[in-house]
Amino acid sequence: MQKVYLAGPDVFLPDALEIGRRKKELCARYGFEGLFPFDNEINPSAATERPDNLIYRANERMIRRADLGICNLTPFRGPSADAGTVFELGMMVGLAKRVFGYTNDVDNFLVRTKRHTAVNFDAATNVCRDANAMSVEDFGNADNLMIDNALIEHGGYQIVRYAAAPDRIFQDLTGFEACLRLAAEAVSKSA
Amino acid sequence: MQKVYLAGPDVFLPDALEIGRRKKELCARYGFEGLFPFDNEINPSAATERPDNLIYRANERMIRRADLGICNLTPFRGPSADAGTVFELGMMVGLAKRVFGYTNDVDNFLVRTKRHTAVNFDAATNVCRDANAMSVEDFGNADNLMIDNALIEHGGYQIVRYAAAPDRIFQDLTGFEACLRLAAEAVSKSA
Repeated sequence: MQKVYLAGPDVFLPDALEIGRRKKELCARYGFEGLFPFDNEINPSAATERPDNLIYRANERMIRRADLGICNLTPFRGPSADAGTVFELGMMVGLAKRVFGYTNDVDNFLVRTKRHTAVNFDAATNVCRDANAMSVEDFGNADNLMIDNALIEHGGYQIVRYAAAPDRIFQDLTGFEACLRLAAEAVSKSA
Repeated sequence: MQKVYLAGPDVFLPDALEIGRRKKELCARYGFEGLFPFDNEINPSAATERPDNLIYRANERMIRRADLGICNLTPFRGPSADAGTVFELGMMVGLAKRVFGYTNDVDNFLVRTKRHTAVNFDAATNVCRDANAMSVEDFGNADNLMIDNALIEHGGYQIVRYAAAPDRIFQDLTGFEACLRLAAEAVSKSA
């Protein structure tokens, strides 16, 4: 049975364990074993061991064991996905795992960015810029181009965008299940 | 000569080419060849080729060619580093490259997060939470634990924190040069 690493900011939810349980149940329904980072047992055995370092190492080991990844790339405290999730997406790509991703926010990156900061069009360079004069990508992607294109190049599908209810933005699993369907299809094709 | 991939939101600056030139000059001074993503020539040859996809593929090729990476992890439009940079850091870790990183903001992640969103202490679970009830890490790291610990595990050093002047937050190269010094030391030790 292929193992799917379940990357996402879900681990920060008060009911993270319940979300993890539901995600693993859905994985099983599609023939996968779900690996949820919260399942890592962290037992600092020495006073010198930092809990965050133990969590990092446990997550990295779990990612290496996985065959593929499904990433919750819903915007997190800004226009982009959670930094930890994005790091894990990159690591899975480097390790040649197949990756899928979803976002519970359907907006393009430029629109998302405008929700968080002032953006002005700079006629001299023909791009939009924020208050720090940093250009804002306008390719119609959901996030930074590295994220959207990593999914296309290393998963075969665009990011799944689903318009979740605002109060279910971090709980809704419709986009997650759509990724499972794509992953099951991909696995059956390559079998 | 070892090649260093220069990851960072520097590519979004109006003077990105000049910053890239200065970074590569500093690399040469420490015995490295700097690879700056902006140097990738993007020439869409067919109407069907998307420029963002060509940029992704060129960056991925450049990362694979590199021996190590130095990442500008200064907070970008939120409490965390630029998503594209974080993705590239993850990819380099997956590819077993040695990674170094700096931030021009010395604050801890909890303080950074409080600058962007309301954070309250949740006595029931003994953690700080944002308005979405998502917990905020409080390990004393600069960013999400995956980022700080990836640098320790795969570079050997903590993230370099430098208090740049607020109007030079994306231009100051003091932290970058500190990373070059660490990288040169690391390479000379393993030679």
